[in-house]
Amino acid sequence: MLSADSSRRLIHPFKEKPMSEKSHPSAVVAADVVPRTKPSLYPAVFAARMQGREKRQLGELFGLTNFGVNLTRMAPNSSSALRHAHSRQDEFIYVLEGTPTLHTDEGMTRLLPGMCAGFRAGTGNAHRLINETDAEVVYLEIGDRTSGDEVNYPDDDLKATLVDARWVFTRKDGSSC
Amino acid sequence: MLSADSSRRLIHPFKEKPMSEKSHPSAVVAADVVPRTKPSLYPAVFAARMQGREKRQLGELFGLTNFGVNLTRMAPNSSSALRHAHSRQDEFIYVLEGTPTLHTDEGMTRLLPGMCAGFRAGTGNAHRLINETDAEVVYLEIGDRTSGDEVNYPDDDLKATLVDARWVFTRKDGSSC
Repeated sequence: MLSADSSRRLIHPFKEKPMSEKSHPSAVVAADVVPRTKPSLYPAVFAARMQGREKRQLGELFGLTNFGVNLTRMAPNSSSALRHAHSRQDEFIYVLEGTPTLHTDEGMTRLLPGMCAGFRAGTGNAHRLINETDAEVVYLEIGDRTSGDEVNYPDDDLKATLVDARWVFTRKDGSSC
Repeated sequence: MLSADSSRRLIHPFKEKPMSEKSHPSAVVAADVVPRTKPSLYPAVFAARMQGREKRQLGELFGLTNFGVNLTRMAPNSSSALRHAHSRQDEFIYVLEGTPTLHTDEGMTRLLPGMCAGFRAGTGNAHRLINETDAEVVYLEIGDRTSGDEVNYPDDDLKATLVDARWVFTRKDGSSC
C-alpha cells in the first residue's frame, strides 16, 4: 500500500497540472475562477431580470458532466433565477455569505451562512433565491443533468425543455419567445 | 406574475414544513443535521481506518436522489476515504473550514477554505483528503449516482461495484472481504 508520506510531493494547484488531465487543474480557489461570460441563458426579456447575478462554473472547470456546481454571487436586489421547478433534475444550494431569501410555493424563508436547501425533482414546488439586503450573497448551487428535464415557471409565461443537452425556451403555449 | 412581496410569509425552516412535502424541510442549518449513524460503508477492516470522519447527509434530508451532498468533518489525522477513482460518477469537494491535504496520483496539495476540487469520472486518477493538521476540517462533498459505477482503490486490495443502487465490495480478484 502506498502511504501518504511515501508519495509526498507538494503541488501548487495553479502552477502544476496532472499529467493525465492537462486541461483540468487539481484544485482552485473558487472565488478566483473567471465568471461565466453569458450572464443568463434565458430569452432576452427574462435575462434582463438577472442583472447582478454572477456565476462561476466550478464543476465545468474540472470537466464534470453529470452535475454542475456554480459559485454564484448575488448583488443587493438581484435574484438567483426566475422561480422554477424541475421535472427530473434535483437541485441543492449552500449559503456561504450573506442572507438570501428563499422563495418557494410556501412563501419566504431568510437563510443564513451555513444553511442549505434542496429541491427534489418532480414536486412542482418552484424556488428561487432573492437578495433583499444591502450586502452581497454568495452561495454554491448544484444541479444534475438528467435528460428529459422540463422546467416550469409558475410566475412567468415561460417553459424550458432540455433537448440534446441544450435548453429550449418557449412560452407556455409552445410559441417562441 | 406573483411578486415576492405579495406572497410574503415568514417560515421557520424547522417549525413549518411545506404542505406538499411533509417529510422534507425547506431549509436547514447544515451543521445541525444529525450525522449518519453508520460511520462507513466499507468492509470492517477498511471501515476501521475511517475513524474521525463524520458525514451529515444533506442531500438525502431533502429527498434528493440524483446526487448526494454531505457535510463531512475530519478530525486531525483522519481521512475522507480510501484513495479511489470512480468509473462513471463525478465527484466534487469544497473546503469550508481547515486545511485538508488532497492526495491524488500526482501527490499532495494542501487546500484552504474556499478552495474546491473536482474528480471527473473515468480518468482513473484516484483521490482522497487527509487531515494532517491539529484542527478539524469541514468540507462539502458531492457525488452523483450514475448506475453501473465501479470504484478502483489503487492503494488497497478492494473493489466496489454499484449493484441495484447498493455498493458491493470485494477484493480485486472478486473474492469476498
